[in-house]
Order: sequence, then structure tokens, then C-alpha cells
Amino acid sequence: MEKYKELRRECYEANQLLPKLGLVLFSFGNVSAFDREAGVFAIKPVGVDYAAMQWEDIVVVDLDNQVVEGRLDPAPDARIHSVLYKSFPGIGGIVHTHSTYAVAWAQAQRDVPLYGTTHANHLAVPIPCTEIMADERIAGDYETETGYQIVDCLMARDLNYQNVPMILVAGHGPFTWGDYAANAVYNAKVLEKLCRMAAITEQLNSATPPLKAALVNRHYNRRHGRRTSFGQN
Amino acid sequence: MEKYKELRRECYEANQLLPKLGLVLFSFGNVSAFDREAGVFAIKPVGVDYAAMQWEDIVVVDLDNQVVEGRLDPAPDARIHSVLYKSFPGIGGIVHTHSTYAVAWAQAQRDVPLYGTTHANHLAVPIPCTEIMADERIAGDYETETGYQIVDCLMARDLNYQNVPMILVAGHGPFTWGDYAANAVYNAKVLEKLCRMAAITEQLNSATPPLKAALVNRHYNRRHGRRTSFGQN
Amino acid sequence: MEKYKELRRECYEANQLLPKLGLVLFSFGNVSAFDREAGVFAIKPVGVDYAAMQWEDIVVVDLDNQVVEGRLDPAPDARIHSVLYKSFPGIGGIVHTHSTYAVAWAQAQRDVPLYGTTHANHLAVPIPCTEIMADERIAGDYETETGYQIVDCLMARDLNYQNVPMILVAGHGPFTWGDYAANAVYNAKVLEKLCRMAAITEQLNSATPPLKAALVNRHYNRRHGRRTSFGQN
Amino acid sequence: MEKYKELRRECYEANQLLPKLGLVLFSFGNVSAFDREAGVFAIKPVGVDYAAMQWEDIVVVDLDNQVVEGRLDPAPDARIHSVLYKSFPGIGGIVHTHSTYAVAWAQAQRDVPLYGTTHANHLAVPIPCTEIMADERIAGDYETETGYQIVDCLMARDLNYQNVPMILVAGHGPFTWGDYAANAVYNAKVLEKLCRMAAITEQLNSATPPLKAALVNRHYNRRHGRRTSFGQN
Repeated sequence: MEKYKELRRECYEANQLLPKLGLVLFSFGNVSAFDREAGVFAIKPVGVDYAAMQWEDIVVVDLDNQVVEGRLDPAPDARIHSVLYKSFPGIGGIVHTHSTYAVAWAQAQRDVPLYGTTHANHLAVPIPCTEIMADERIAGDYETETGYQIVDCLMARDLNYQNVPMILVAGHGPFTWGDYAANAVYNAKVLEKLCRMAAITEQLNSATPPLKAALVNRHYNRRHGRRTSFGQN
Repeated sequence: MEKYKELRRECYEANQLLPKLGLVLFSFGNVSAFDREAGVFAIKPVGVDYAAMQWEDIVVVDLDNQVVEGRLDPAPDARIHSVLYKSFPGIGGIVHTHSTYAVAWAQAQRDVPLYGTTHANHLAVPIPCTEIMADERIAGDYETETGYQIVDCLMARDLNYQNVPMILVAGHGPFTWGDYAANAVYNAKVLEKLCRMAAITEQLNSATPPLKAALVNRHYNRRHGRRTSFGQN
Repeated sequence: MEKYKELRRECYEANQLLPKLGLVLFSFGNVSAFDREAGVFAIKPVGVDYAAMQWEDIVVVDLDNQVVEGRLDPAPDARIHSVLYKSFPGIGGIVHTHSTYAVAWAQAQRDVPLYGTTHANHLAVPIPCTEIMADERIAGDYETETGYQIVDCLMARDLNYQNVPMILVAGHGPFTWGDYAANAVYNAKVLEKLCRMAAITEQLNSATPPLKAALVNRHYNRRHGRRTSFGQN
Repeated sequence: MEKYKELRRECYEANQLLPKLGLVLFSFGNVSAFDREAGVFAIKPVGVDYAAMQWEDIVVVDLDNQVVEGRLDPAPDARIHSVLYKSFPGIGGIVHTHSTYAVAWAQAQRDVPLYGTTHANHLAVPIPCTEIMADERIAGDYETETGYQIVDCLMARDLNYQNVPMILVAGHGPFTWGDYAANAVYNAKVLEKLCRMAAITEQLNSATPPLKAALVNRHYNRRHGRRTSFGQN
């Protein structure tokens, strides 16, 4: 019996958006879709290329990372996803990619400054980049610690996951989330574009000031309360 | 009855050129087409993706931003367009995008210097970038004020809309216009290419001088009086 | 009667390679194909987009720029081509584009340094960039003068057209040539790639030395005497 | 009789991946596939474009570079490949490309620093760049010397070919290898992406530190022992 067929299909479709949007190379990345009522999420299996993937390959795990449906092993990053689903009530999808510009900012260990209204249409603060993970955390359950690292970074800056649906893990790469898996993919693509535009902006004017608060608020509030998804902005 | 079917179709076709030319991500951007005799323009509705859009989704509004035909709400940017149609007699189409290099220059708050003949074939001056909008304007009718900001910038520099069919709104992004919607799209693509070439030029030689006047005039005048549109240059 | 049907078809096919290779935007560029025996060349007409072009649109002109076959007007740049055909005995095709990186180097008014073996496989010297055209030349027959500018630049540096099949006209863009139109297109694509790789090289190491002579010669001579064309290197 | 039909087909398929993955322009590059038991390898012939190539064009040579099957001449770079097959027991495929960012780092004569986990997932050290070849080597059997240059560089740094499946030859470009030809192509694509991300990282933060050892080891060891190939990571 396939109880989570619909969830797996949603996860499959969202995973397929990654290569379509130019966000992944080979199998570098993963999308999960959460069923909050059931307390389980569907995620890409380890080691299956996007081109070869079928919805039947998608694995369903619970929040303790135990497989509840599917033949294959989940991506090890599932442990990161479960931390986020437990910590961010209300999100329904998570995306991790190695998209080029987002990884470059993460490697440069810098927040992405808020330089323009394209950014402010989506979030009202710079895109946060975590600290490099402490050695004791690396030595522990690395994937779980990566999840905590994300949660701690938002908390330390007094940001909430609803207003800031994207983060860079220093030296690693981007994670995004959303109401549904497809929203999280949307945010992953927006993040990559913001990262690219900010990089070029700094090349053109290394003294570019952040966008002033009045403009940030005007744009961010225009969007606030509206779902941002494919076809919704 | 659909009085403005033809205008909506023209608008639809021009909007579809944006993704085809790589100028938009998701629904970030809009094209309008003006019927000067009737005093109305067709514009993209709010929140409809380019892939899903049909000509029937296009909305027609008058210069007071009242819907005169169509089921959907117009893009909020319609108020920017109506200011430009009122201020620039003779234009028949307007485009706004968040294309990558044009946004980067807008975010860097810089005019795009006139470095070569590709630029001079289209305009004889740097591509103007407005000032960052004043707080009192932001607090007002923001979209209408964005329109005035564009008009005021050209006026303050003694430029006219016929010779300068493109502008960058600081911290925001590009607006272009033309005789028809398709010309405005053409200008949006040319602008993006000029922005990219100028960025690379400065990387190669940070002391690149502007193109000398004799060459600017030779190229600009060779084109002057000829329609620049798809297939016309 | 269509005496030059074959020449026009060759010219048409070579023109169509430009958009296929990502070398042109809209109608910015042109390819010509020369029949040295007949003393005429086929060239793209003015103002016809690549997508809409048919072989019947191609125009044949003589070396005095008089149309000898075809319904349309030749590109004004035909006068540049005729100077080059007269000055470079043995070439059979010429290409002019506004490809992004080649234009950026031309706008930066710099020769493209010889940094690697990809470059040395094609030419043993930096890619020359002309001086900015003198005012008296601009005031004259501009296109013809552009041709002379190219010829003079090679001569002043004691370079010959056989060993250096590409040049940048300062503030303008690239011209390339070859035994046939298709070779000239090949050179236009190689030029764009060399320009892009050299730009990134300088970003990575602003003190990158030119490739040493022993390596330049080893690579250049390995190719010397062999036709470089599609499928021939 | 075609004894090596299967090997030639494997080589053909792997060569066709290069244009598909955006790693080659025209015929700049080559892939070989090794049959260690037979002591022969299949390689791309000289001067055949990827688009026109058929498996029958692939040539089989022994480790003394003598053709043992096939009608065409092998790429001159076959002599590089034979040195590597003799020196790196266990590899089954080699790739050489002129991919843009990898060539740029090679021209800049720099190792690619290890800035992030995408890199550490594949190798635990910077991507090595050889010295510029000494004049006496250039004057000798150039291709064979290029092979020795690669082997010597790894040895001088106490690196082994199993842990470091990629290298940049200074002033020239990248070489990669793997268990099979397809793995070597995978590594060529990963290398290009790492080179691009590192270039952007340095643009964003010229003082970016290398990724700390604890993170490098955590990521590298997570992969160690697992085959990295299409669909396997």
C-alpha cells in the first residue's frame, strides 16, 4: 500500500524543478515535502540523478529519520530537514542546492546585502550566512548539527523563518523553505538570482549602500501577506 | 464584447517575448501596449506567470488606472505606466523587467557609461539612473511617484524620451519604452546587453574613457530617423 | 537568372551560424562570402533578422560596392568587407559581430594578451585592438575608413592577415576572416571564447604573465599549415 | 573484425557527454577509455567534430601509441593519455577539455583553493596546477612530456591519483581521470563548477580563508569509498 503517494509525487515534481531552473548539477541537491498532520516528509533518495528519478524513488521518513515508505535510502541531508520541520512550524517544504552564486556567497562567508527592491520584495533583511560550524558540532551528528546551525543563526539574529525563508550555511551552500515544496524551490531560485545580482552590483560599485529602509519597507510590505509562489507574485 | 482584443493580443505577444529573451524570472516584469487614440492601455495582470498566461488574462485600463476591459486586476505597476503614457506623447509601449545586469547597475546607483558603438547605435548619452526616491515620495502613491521620478530625471538632465528610450530607477531596475510594445521589449534586451558589456569593460580597464563624441554622433546619426525594432537595424 | 545562388547560399548558411553559436543579438552582425574569381561577395542585407532571413535575401555586390544580384540593400558594413577583400588576397569570408566579451575588450581598448595554449593554437600574438579612429577618418567614408583602420593596424605591427585572422576595432567590436565564410565564423567564436577566458584569467591573477614563447611556438606550429575550420582542429 | 567495438562505443558515449555538459567548443577536447587487461585505449580521432562523430571514428591505440583498430588518426594528445594510463594503475578513463573556468585558472597559473564543501565532497586538497613546462621538455616529445608533467606534479606534492582525480596544466587546461571514461567526464564537469564557484568567491571576498580541516575531512570522508559517478553521489 502506498499511503504517501501524493506526497511523494509532490516531492518528485518539486525535485524535477531544480534541473529545470538550472539550480543543480548531477544529483547535488534535494527537495523534501512535509505532511505536518502525519508528521512525515518525502525526500529525494541518496544517489539518484534527476534525469533518472521517478516518483517511486522518493522516500518517506518520519521526524526521527526512520523510513516509513519507499525502497531506497533517503539523502543523508534528511536529518537536516527533520530539524527544520521540527523547528519551523508551518513550513511544508525545504530545498538544498549547490547553485553557483549562492554557494559562492556561502564560501565567501558573507551575508548577502540588501541592495535593491528585487531583494526587498522577498525579504526585508540581508540574506543571513551562518558562522562556520564549530569543531565539536562537526564531530557530532553532522547533518543534525547543520539543522541546528540554521535554527540558531536565525534565533541569534532575532529573525523568524516566516520572514526569512532562506539562509546560507557558511562554507557549504543555501537552504530555503516555504509553505509547500514548490514555494521552497521558488525561494531557491530567487536566492540564486539575488546572489548573482548582488555580486555584480559590488563589482560595479564597491561602496554600494544598502537600500534605504523606507524603500525596503514599501516593497516588503506590498508583498507581505501574499503567498509568493509560482504565478503568485 | 471585447473592444480591445487586438490591443490585448499585442500586449500578450510582447509579454511573451520577455521569457523568450531571458529577461524575466517567474512573473517579475510587465509589458503594456497603448492605444493613444482611445486613451487606454493593455497590461499584464498581477500574479500570472508567463508560462500560464493567455491573451484573455491581459487587462485594459484607462489613464486614471480604471479597468475598462478584462477579468483580472492589472499589475500595480500600471500606475507607473499611466504616468509615462501621459508624459511621453508618441510612445506606444512600456516594459519593466528585473533583468540581471540592468538591475545590478540600478542597485549600484550608476549611469551606464557610453563605452562603445553598440551603445551609440541606440542612444547618444549614458543610460541615466535616477536618484534614490525621496522619503516623502515613497510615503505617497509609490507607483505614481516612480513614474514621476522617471519623467523628472529625464527633464532634469534635459533629455527627451524619444532619444533616450530607457532608464534605470535607482535601487530598483530598468524601464524602457518605444513606438510599440515590441519596440519597448527590443529596448529592454538592448539595455541588458549594454549593461553587461559595460560591466565587463570596466573589469578589463577601470580607466576606460567614454567613446569620443565624433564616433558617438557618427553611429547615433546613422540610425537616427530609422525605426529600431526587431529586424529593423 | 541567379548566377550567384551557390555563393548566396554559402553566405546564408554562415550567417545562420551566428545565432546558433550565440554570437549575435537581433540583427547585430554580418557575414560575407567572397568569390575571388568573379570579384564579388555575398553579404547579409540591411535590417533583416536572422530568424526571418532566407537565402534569397542575401545580396551580391562587387568590390566597388555595387549590387550585382539580389533585391535588398546590402548591410552598410559591406564597404568594410570590400576593403578587406581587396587588401587580404586569399581570404574567402569575413564576419563582424557584437559578441559580448570581444566588444568588452574593444571598448576597453586593449589587445587581448596571449595567456594560454587555446589562444596559441590559433594565433601566436595577442589579438590586436586598433587605435580609436581619428576624427578626420570618422568625418569621411566611415565604413571604408574602418576597413583601412583594420588593414593599417596589422601593417603597423608587421602582422599579416594569414597568421592573425581576427582583430578588435577599438570602441566598436570584432572582425574575423578566413578561407571561407564558415572559417571566419569559426574564428569569431574562437575569438569570443579567448576574450572570455582572458577576462577571467585577469580576475584570478592580475599579474598573469604572457605564455612563454617556447609554448606559444610549440602550439602554434602544431597547427600551422592545417586548415582550422569546423571539424578540422 | 572489430575486437574493441564495446570499448569504442564507451569512448564515443563519453565523448558525446562533453558537448552535452557544455565542456567543449568545436573539437577542443578528448576522452579516452582504457581496457587495462588488453593494454589498449580508445580515443577520439584528430579533427572530428563532436556533432559529426560516430562510434566508428573512435581509434584504439596501445600504450606505445600504435593504432590497433580504427581508420582514423588518434588525437595527438593520445601520448598524454598513454603516460597517465601507465602511471596511474586502476584508472579507466581520461578527459581533457578547454572548459572556460578551468582554463582560466590554468592560465592564471594558480591552484584552485578549497573554499567549500562542494569541493571537499570530491577532493580534500586544492586542485593542483602544475608549473609552466621547462623549455627542454617543450623541445622534446611535447605530449609525452605533458603526461610526465602531470605525474611529476602529483608526486612532488605527495598526492595520489586516486584522491586527486583532476589537475590543471599551467597555461594550458584541465585533465581529469576516473574508474571509467564516464567518471572522468563527471570529474571534468565538477572541476569546471568548482573553478567557477571559487572565482566568484574570490570576487566577493578576496580574503576568503580555506575551508577548515574538520569540515574538509567530514565531507571528504562521507564520500570516500563510494563511487562518484553519474547518479552515484
